[in-house]
Amino acid sequence: MYDELIVSPRVLLGPGPSEANARVLKAMTTPMLGYLDTEFVQVMGDTVGLLRRVFGTENRLTLPVSGTGTAGMEAALANVVEPGDAVIVGVKGYFGERIADIAARCGGIVTKVETEWGTHIPAEKIAEVVAKVSTPKLVALVHGETSTGVLQPLKDAIEIAHQNGALFLADCVTSLGGQPVDMDALDIDIAYSCTQKCLAGPPGLSPISFSDRAVDVIRNRKTPIQSFYLDMTLLENYWHGEKEKRRYHHTVSISLIYALREALRVVLEEGLDVRYKRHVHNARALLAGAKAIGLQPAAEEGYRAPMLTTLRIPDGIDDATIRTRLIADYGIEIGAGLGVFAGKAWRIGLMGESSNEKNVMLVLSALEKLLIESGHRVERGSAVHAASHVYAV
Amino acid sequence: MYDELIVSPRVLLGPGPSEANARVLKAMTTPMLGYLDTEFVQVMGDTVGLLRRVFGTENRLTLPVSGTGTAGMEAALANVVEPGDAVIVGVKGYFGERIADIAARCGGIVTKVETEWGTHIPAEKIAEVVAKVSTPKLVALVHGETSTGVLQPLKDAIEIAHQNGALFLADCVTSLGGQPVDMDALDIDIAYSCTQKCLAGPPGLSPISFSDRAVDVIRNRKTPIQSFYLDMTLLENYWHGEKEKRRYHHTVSISLIYALREALRVVLEEGLDVRYKRHVHNARALLAGAKAIGLQPAAEEGYRAPMLTTLRIPDGIDDATIRTRLIADYGIEIGAGLGVFAGKAWRIGLMGESSNEKNVMLVLSALEKLLIESGHRVERGSAVHAASHVYAV
Repeated sequence: MYDELIVSPRVLLGPGPSEANARVLKAMTTPMLGYLDTEFVQVMGDTVGLLRRVFGTENRLTLPVSGTGTAGMEAALANVVEPGDAVIVGVKGYFGERIADIAARCGGIVTKVETEWGTHIPAEKIAEVVAKVSTPKLVALVHGETSTGVLQPLKDAIEIAHQNGALFLADCVTSLGGQPVDMDALDIDIAYSCTQKCLAGPPGLSPISFSDRAVDVIRNRKTPIQSFYLDMTLLENYWHGEKEKRRYHHTVSISLIYALREALRVVLEEGLDVRYKRHVHNARALLAGAKAIGLQPAAEEGYRAPMLTTLRIPDGIDDATIRTRLIADYGIEIGAGLGVFAGKAWRIGLMGESSNEKNVMLVLSALEKLLIESGHRVERGSAVHAASHVYAV
Repeated sequence: MYDELIVSPRVLLGPGPSEANARVLKAMTTPMLGYLDTEFVQVMGDTVGLLRRVFGTENRLTLPVSGTGTAGMEAALANVVEPGDAVIVGVKGYFGERIADIAARCGGIVTKVETEWGTHIPAEKIAEVVAKVSTPKLVALVHGETSTGVLQPLKDAIEIAHQNGALFLADCVTSLGGQPVDMDALDIDIAYSCTQKCLAGPPGLSPISFSDRAVDVIRNRKTPIQSFYLDMTLLENYWHGEKEKRRYHHTVSISLIYALREALRVVLEEGLDVRYKRHVHNARALLAGAKAIGLQPAAEEGYRAPMLTTLRIPDGIDDATIRTRLIADYGIEIGAGLGVFAGKAWRIGLMGESSNEKNVMLVLSALEKLLIESGHRVERGSAVHAASHVYAV
């Protein structure tokens, strides 16, 4: 009734999943181990050690939550926010809204700092709102906003949060492994990410890390954490308990942890700085090519996330037609606009393995051809020509 | 700094993960697809169709939650339980306690129906407690209790729940794919499971299904669902939305869904009835062999879960010594006792692929040898002899 699974090859240039590294896929065929097997405990330790390096932290409470990025978001909020706590959330796109939604479900009293989609949130605006809120518990910002392609500066906001006695949370779902997070250097209290974007693994885990300051807040809660599955005090016992104190909490995703360990090895073999520069370089080439064929960036200059380029869909061009043809003729997936950008912008991800010159040239060539066919006036070869200039430097 | 991952081969006879089918591991090397790719939408549809057959249901709201069994437990409770709701939980082991814990974190007022570890909960006892609770919202029972190896009869309890206007929830984490769940025939309202036990896949997903009656309860909630990640009204849009109404919620675990689809194909190729009988047959042989070397079952006769046999550790035998030697000399993992059974019983899982004659003979031989070495008085060859009799029939 159901045949063997056979899928068409795809060039994944959407907002994630990106193309998983072949070594990572192979790691998932490693036979199962029990969740308390000493060999698996070693794998867990390795994975946490590697994660700390990518997060730029020595935080003890660092581990992959057994769920996708949104599970990490929920774990971050459910552990520190108690009913009645004041939470300040920067909203400049879809995922800022999601943080606000989840913080409210945790009983938080949410105040939003909003700016237009495609822009960053200025530090002064955050300072202004924080000053008006009495005893803010948490200030939360999305680092790389996946819906708009904006990379939010964090430094000043972190200082504002701490000066006002609040914890600082950074959503690094899109940024981790593609741009520096530097958790300890910046003094971020809570950061979480995913595995299927710049880390080039399969989706299903959410790396998360809490500073000692955040751990203190969790230990001093007055109410129980509303989620058992995401209760960090219980997860800490399982991931970081010494010998007999290492206690079963739930059966973690063994195969995905094998995959994450391998993905992180690949990341660190390349080197973080090299990897960050690669993301910037390919994004620059993509944008140069895109502009040459009349596709304007939807994100504010100076605040563009190199792993996700948003481009305004030109007047007269049908969003769905282009995306359908990209898949049908080239197997290329790019992201549709989300929320305010639905039908108005495309999201081209160059994340992890997917961030390479081959993909840049391919997607530009394909877009140029399809735009010309759609009646968009462009000089032939201009996208590749412009991108080549970037690569020639 | 970190080498390639190489793990020792294991014979997985614990409480799960069981040995993943090789076809299932291979399926995880399938390249990524986008989470809204039409080909992936087809994979999702296939998976749900296959899941419905294993659950024995036509429930529309059937899908794999992106987390392990405990995430399914939390999804089940968080969606139907509102603050102040009366929840009746059968507690005959560790996982019944966990249901009670999570229901309380959802704001439920929990009344437990408790019996001794190793026994089932008689229907009369449930009826008695339900009668004392005014307007019970939910009655929850663990089908296969992973901590004790008891398989709880559900039929009478389901009638009691419905006669009193309550929903009925069955935790099928250990039973699904190993013994009939028959959701529709029994009129179970909510059931969830995991992928790494009798379905013989990797851990990381929790198949769940809600009856129309349960869906009505969710639709008529007065308070928001406290979890966004596990909010079934949002997950339903993603998994079951028609065309444009299919809306992004979170990036699901693509590779694990490939794996689950393949695991379910393997299950249905074998045939559910054949699979259930295989589990019963191998458990019978294991128990016959175990008794022959003086290992007595810890679960009540007539209520033993065939996928998980609990055996009392004889006086004078050191729990850890035997388990350590099993791993070191044979690569065999059996489960330690949990909770009340810690240090007092072993849990031998014969789940999914792991349930076969080869494993039964191997674990019996190994146990016999190690027990004799530990000074336990047994006639040599008696375990294999007794098990052989069962297979000879």
